[in-house]
Amino acid sequence: MRKIGILTGGGDCPGLNAAIRGVVYAAEKFGFSCIGILEGWKGMIEKNTMVLRKEDVAYIIFEGGTILGTSRTNPFKKEENVKKVLDNFKSLDLYALVAIGGEDTLGVATRFYEDYKMNVVGVPKTMDNDLNATDYTFGFDTAVTRAMEAAKALIDTGRSHRRVMVFEVMGRHAGWVALFTAIASASDYVCLPEKKVDPNELIKKVKDAYSRKKFALVVVSEAVEMIDEEKNLGSGEVDQFGHTILKERGVGERIAKFIEKNTGIETRHAVIGHMQRGGEPTLFDRILATRVGIKAAELVRDGDFGKMAALCGNEIKAVPLKEATGQLKLVDNKWIEIMDILF
Amino acid sequence: MRKIGILTGGGDCPGLNAAIRGVVYAAEKFGFSCIGILEGWKGMIEKNTMVLRKEDVAYIIFEGGTILGTSRTNPFKKEENVKKVLDNFKSLDLYALVAIGGEDTLGVATRFYEDYKMNVVGVPKTMDNDLNATDYTFGFDTAVTRAMEAAKALIDTGRSHRRVMVFEVMGRHAGWVALFTAIASASDYVCLPEKKVDPNELIKKVKDAYSRKKFALVVVSEAVEMIDEEKNLGSGEVDQFGHTILKERGVGERIAKFIEKNTGIETRHAVIGHMQRGGEPTLFDRILATRVGIKAAELVRDGDFGKMAALCGNEIKAVPLKEATGQLKLVDNKWIEIMDILF
Amino acid sequence: MRKIGILTGGGDCPGLNAAIRGVVYAAEKFGFSCIGILEGWKGMIEKNTMVLRKEDVAYIIFEGGTILGTSRTNPFKKEENVKKVLDNFKSLDLYALVAIGGEDTLGVATRFYEDYKMNVVGVPKTMDNDLNATDYTFGFDTAVTRAMEAAKALIDTGRSHRRVMVFEVMGRHAGWVALFTAIASASDYVCLPEKKVDPNELIKKVKDAYSRKKFALVVVSEAVEMIDEEKNLGSGEVDQFGHTILKERGVGERIAKFIEKNTGIETRHAVIGHMQRGGEPTLFDRILATRVGIKAAELVRDGDFGKMAALCGNEIKAVPLKEATGQLKLVDNKWIEIMDILF
Amino acid sequence: MRKIGILTGGGDCPGLNAAIRGVVYAAEKFGFSCIGILEGWKGMIEKNTMVLRKEDVAYIIFEGGTILGTSRTNPFKKEENVKKVLDNFKSLDLYALVAIGGEDTLGVATRFYEDYKMNVVGVPKTMDNDLNATDYTFGFDTAVTRAMEAAKALIDTGRSHRRVMVFEVMGRHAGWVALFTAIASASDYVCLPEKKVDPNELIKKVKDAYSRKKFALVVVSEAVEMIDEEKNLGSGEVDQFGHTILKERGVGERIAKFIEKNTGIETRHAVIGHMQRGGEPTLFDRILATRVGIKAAELVRDGDFGKMAALCGNEIKAVPLKEATGQLKLVDNKWIEIMDILF
Repeated sequence: MRKIGILTGGGDCPGLNAAIRGVVYAAEKFGFSCIGILEGWKGMIEKNTMVLRKEDVAYIIFEGGTILGTSRTNPFKKEENVKKVLDNFKSLDLYALVAIGGEDTLGVATRFYEDYKMNVVGVPKTMDNDLNATDYTFGFDTAVTRAMEAAKALIDTGRSHRRVMVFEVMGRHAGWVALFTAIASASDYVCLPEKKVDPNELIKKVKDAYSRKKFALVVVSEAVEMIDEEKNLGSGEVDQFGHTILKERGVGERIAKFIEKNTGIETRHAVIGHMQRGGEPTLFDRILATRVGIKAAELVRDGDFGKMAALCGNEIKAVPLKEATGQLKLVDNKWIEIMDILF
Repeated sequence: MRKIGILTGGGDCPGLNAAIRGVVYAAEKFGFSCIGILEGWKGMIEKNTMVLRKEDVAYIIFEGGTILGTSRTNPFKKEENVKKVLDNFKSLDLYALVAIGGEDTLGVATRFYEDYKMNVVGVPKTMDNDLNATDYTFGFDTAVTRAMEAAKALIDTGRSHRRVMVFEVMGRHAGWVALFTAIASASDYVCLPEKKVDPNELIKKVKDAYSRKKFALVVVSEAVEMIDEEKNLGSGEVDQFGHTILKERGVGERIAKFIEKNTGIETRHAVIGHMQRGGEPTLFDRILATRVGIKAAELVRDGDFGKMAALCGNEIKAVPLKEATGQLKLVDNKWIEIMDILF
Repeated sequence: MRKIGILTGGGDCPGLNAAIRGVVYAAEKFGFSCIGILEGWKGMIEKNTMVLRKEDVAYIIFEGGTILGTSRTNPFKKEENVKKVLDNFKSLDLYALVAIGGEDTLGVATRFYEDYKMNVVGVPKTMDNDLNATDYTFGFDTAVTRAMEAAKALIDTGRSHRRVMVFEVMGRHAGWVALFTAIASASDYVCLPEKKVDPNELIKKVKDAYSRKKFALVVVSEAVEMIDEEKNLGSGEVDQFGHTILKERGVGERIAKFIEKNTGIETRHAVIGHMQRGGEPTLFDRILATRVGIKAAELVRDGDFGKMAALCGNEIKAVPLKEATGQLKLVDNKWIEIMDILF
Repeated sequence: MRKIGILTGGGDCPGLNAAIRGVVYAAEKFGFSCIGILEGWKGMIEKNTMVLRKEDVAYIIFEGGTILGTSRTNPFKKEENVKKVLDNFKSLDLYALVAIGGEDTLGVATRFYEDYKMNVVGVPKTMDNDLNATDYTFGFDTAVTRAMEAAKALIDTGRSHRRVMVFEVMGRHAGWVALFTAIASASDYVCLPEKKVDPNELIKKVKDAYSRKKFALVVVSEAVEMIDEEKNLGSGEVDQFGHTILKERGVGERIAKFIEKNTGIETRHAVIGHMQRGGEPTLFDRILATRVGIKAAELVRDGDFGKMAALCGNEIKAVPLKEATGQLKLVDNKWIEIMDILF
């Protein structure tokens, strides 16, 4: 019986277990057996594995995180590790490898496929939803749901105290998490990394909202910058390469101080951080993760390697792995128009 | 300032308030004002309305149900009511009407548009997700989420007592709710209205699951039928028109009894019923409802009447109203294949 | 090292796993080891056990149900089973047995302690909160929380449709679940098993509430009776012993029909049933279950057998097992006064 | 009809609305009418009020925060404000005032009662559960529930990444929030403000847990100090009064760094902050807040002023207001013993 190895790499997110389960269920149906590779590519280097049968994964769909563990280990950083991965692929008697992860994990998978003809199939995941070549990746819906729940608490306390609340959420390059959190939480303004914050507009929007209801909520992506950052957020010093060095404080805190200073209204901030990464996956993520997991097993069955299983519209399609990596998917005009209406 | 009337009709579902909010936010942005028509088409007949400004709807996105109320009133059942609707449309000085609802509500909207040239725009909603011409409608994700939460409780108690649990969920014509609940809840079998239940397969699947783990979960759509219904579920008598009269008991209960009788395993059932209809809308439904609400206002702005705002892939598109009604969207082959793998 | 057996019997409820965990953690601290007896007293008869070390139970506090399984098996129903329990107690080399359960399970424990001097300690649990000699038992807070969540959905849909909603919850003898659900869910009326429902008062309260807000919620305990039951609820026939035979339909459904008939207002009902029994335990139940589990291990350590660990005020105390069983704790005057204010 | 004023002061917490509702329902039953005083004592100074009838508060039990708004304004800081409060009490034609709040709010109430014979009744609330003379105050159960939910997410991500997670929760003086969060979340260690953290014990416990399961969770109260704080956490400088100045970083972050440095294990931290203050109140808080609200109205009815409604065991009792303030309720020996077993 042909054997499939499954690994999860990079930052964890809810839905990884559902995807693992999807691969295993479909693989067994198609006559393969599965083993789990522990802690991402590190497990391929160290030959660290676990048994993965249908009965082992039946109920993991309910759990956040990944039962396989994860790491950011990249075998291509050390020549010898590439060899170890290739050797272990053989000594584990693997027919194919299903790599579940984000840009980095799939980038490694791409190289093993392209340079070493390894039978690799990818399953994309991101919390930030910024992977190109797929409409949505699992993990995102749950992460924003967690933020939406936290935002509700901030609204309750903010309205009671007649305060402005600034809520910093994840999203290093793309503002999807901030945007969806802001829409779903009736936020009054949202700051995305795609566009420098205009301090005048920010202050105007906060004042308008506050004058109407003695409360305002501002959702801020962790990587947001402001026009005249230095002057406004005091986060200034510039290093020898001309790059601005961000101060230790998070941008949510700095924006909260900026608002308080420029409006005179008591302002508080909160940072969701790692609390956004876990907990029960939502329905959407369970279904999507199950579907892409199943699709990955189908690609293995069909010998269609070097591809990943991506959601396009309402279909799961096979997309070349290298299309996934490279370019980021940013908040586009369609959504900017919606922002103009809502915020 | 041109005025838009908004009504919600048919069975309520979470997301209606988010859709209303989306229409109002966009309409005000475009220079319209809005009023709410109470209790669906009934409010158009009785000229029952409420004020709907941005500040009235700012925070309703968090709430299930509809602040406008709803009813199943169909003005076309009484000639005089059609006239009343047309008269009130004028006397309320409406420029256009946004009708949010399912097949029936949108069917009425279609007739007013086609036969009376009323400026009507539709926003589709269903709990069952069986509306043609749209990939997903809001309400569905929340309804299945509610079922998924309830299923978790059934799993906990069923596993503790070594029982088979049968869980009956909504879905009169299409099995989407049952199917998604079953996938997301690691169910062992699922019975859809699209296909008569094979009693032998059902018993085999339940026995297999139970022998492995002393527990099995079966999700059942409320409208399921079984091969040899009469003989197996004892739900037989036939009326004078040759239609089978379903016994008073729900199909979940009858299938539970059938399983217990044919396996000897203690079996319990639960019916989610109206508990599936409410509660906080999920992220998915808040975003989708907001988007289709905004789109409806755009259609009014553009004078593009007789259309509804539908999710197609990842886009919100304008679809002729009459395409929405008529044919139902049933569980198709793509999903049957997934079922073969998972159940 | 002395060995403690742990069993869970009777209907399952959230918190059982937390209690098991509490016993194991404290027992190991005190120098004992633990084993799990499977499926209540049945496991003592059949000598069916599992390993229970600290690492096995570390994270079960998050899970509803019981990892040990449960049953309603009573060894005293068959002479030979009593002997088997006694024999297995010896052959398993048990020093003491911790029995976690309700009236029946603790009743069996009492007899083994009284008649056979078995080293038995009890931990009370009920979903209904009707155990005498303890203020609250774990399971109750979670069960009512589940009902409270479901009630919110009923309110959303009921208000939207301008309906009366009748919600049937658990509680065979005592109305605690119904009462707490009704208070926490802003119910308009509540029917408890402690007192026959006055049909006139019921109708008056429903009409009053409905006239104010076009909606009413009535919470009903599963075992409620009405004055003139037969006449009003049509649930009449009397058997040869003079006992009224309740019709198959649940009392929630019958009361809903009664309200609809007597008010002319559209009325719907829902039954929570087994959905009330599971899911994540609440904070309150996790803390309480952990505390009584620890206390049970302390009683074993101190050789204080024939007792159970009960919450009295804010303290966990040792109460003679036989006090737990016998008399039920019913809704008392203090709460009736609160009902008069709220409903 | 005699009129009761109701105000909520100090930090908000879930349950305030339920308490307001309880006062209003009982007051109307007893023949009083109610008005809401806005934003705590500030509203008494500025004569800022809102209508509060039964129908206005019927459904606020579901909402976090306070519909009356709150502030930390203390009229005794300015002579003239005391006079304004007394004048407005008269000009508003109040018979009595129900003050809902923590130490500060109730302290002000005490002075108005003692020094000015104002008809004042108190309702205690704290998020920290550190008020003397009451077993539990509403707000605490919800706050810890929110922390427990967040902790689950941290566990999921921490286990996947093989990290130590440090979770900082509220609790300025007493460790109740941290302790209950730690118990309910299967934490491996907990740091309370009641006792300086022993760095050696902390490191030992973390290492032990990590060696068993490649993960550890440490819950930390926001006000925790460590033995040799300066040396270990680098949070040293001392001001001119000899007080240690805490560095800007929260203690959770500093402890995380300390653990990482001393164990070599990747460690992350999260701070719940304001996200702990809001959201839907739990069942426990709804019931408790309703009960103390009702009791407050009873005290007004009975002319029993200068008291507050406190939970003692399972009873709501009247306790002199001045007993509430003054001494804090800290984590005591009974709980330290439990900690020794669990952590």
